[in-house]
Amino acid sequence: MKALKDRILRDGKHLGNGILKVDGFMNHQIDPVLMKEVGEEFAARFAKTGATRILTAETSGIAPALSAGMAMRIPVVFARKHKPKTMGGEPLRQTAPSHTHGGEVELLVSNEYLEASDKVLIIDDFLSTARTINALVKMVADSGAELVGIGAVIEKSFQGGREAIGKIDVPVESLAVIDSFDGETIVLREDKVAN
Amino acid sequence: MKALKDRILRDGKHLGNGILKVDGFMNHQIDPVLMKEVGEEFAARFAKTGATRILTAETSGIAPALSAGMAMRIPVVFARKHKPKTMGGEPLRQTAPSHTHGGEVELLVSNEYLEASDKVLIIDDFLSTARTINALVKMVADSGAELVGIGAVIEKSFQGGREAIGKIDVPVESLAVIDSFDGETIVLREDKVAN
Repeated sequence: MKALKDRILRDGKHLGNGILKVDGFMNHQIDPVLMKEVGEEFAARFAKTGATRILTAETSGIAPALSAGMAMRIPVVFARKHKPKTMGGEPLRQTAPSHTHGGEVELLVSNEYLEASDKVLIIDDFLSTARTINALVKMVADSGAELVGIGAVIEKSFQGGREAIGKIDVPVESLAVIDSFDGETIVLREDKVAN
Repeated sequence: MKALKDRILRDGKHLGNGILKVDGFMNHQIDPVLMKEVGEEFAARFAKTGATRILTAETSGIAPALSAGMAMRIPVVFARKHKPKTMGGEPLRQTAPSHTHGGEVELLVSNEYLEASDKVLIIDDFLSTARTINALVKMVADSGAELVGIGAVIEKSFQGGREAIGKIDVPVESLAVIDSFDGETIVLREDKVAN
């Protein structure tokens, strides 16, 4: 996705240790025009999955998941990191890494919004170690729903996420793949076909 | 906004103590089709403000703010509740109530994304006590930017938010106003003109 890759090269910043700062357009400030394109690209790539719901995790997954949901016209559920007063019953629970605190956080999804009859598309901002995505994958399994796809805006291929997801029979799509950092230089994977 | 009001009456649930559960379409699961309309309605109501940025607070403000940003084609900044590794320097800080924990949380906005030259539109999910919105108003003032409007998806008028915002010379718009709860019944304010 050219607009995204151009933006990563222009505004992304490698802070060291494989941490990419994309706060200017995705994780603190959002560029809604770019985010709309991101959603449309996900919709195109997952058009054949028959997804009935999108699942993501707060906070940074919400923007790309909502944008994809707008394009696909299906509901978007975001796993919460804290149980709000409004969440009744016994929610689905999984543990995921905290990207702000370090350590771990619990992700919670009310079973009101993931049903066994659902075909679920998981969308998140990053595919890096895949620990958050794998927690969402487990939630889908726990709900009895069917996983039909996994999409990430940016993949950092050198952090082993695809291997960590393991062999699953659904498409795993990322819209920009970073193969490495060379100091401050962001090395993006080139598409096989120009786009 | 008729679609929103109909949805509140259909899927909203008064849990007691003035707490409205809208997890089915706004705060845990998002209806992207409704949320797109919400954004377009904000864009129409604030079209004349000349806003250059939208400011909201994570988590539940992100969806309506992003949707408004898509319609207005201006960047959306969400105040963070925890300082991520990617946030450098000394961010703007204000205290706001925590709706999940009780107690208070700190809101942080990097001064990279609020500039003195900005005209800022604040968007949030609820206008109830206005404590979160007032924290955002202070951040705008601290940044030196100009506040040009405040929008909330749902206002609970009986919790005194408008009075708490006080006299400010910018439009304050909410798309649905709840005047009271009568047990499980949600009493919505009727529009002067049918819409």
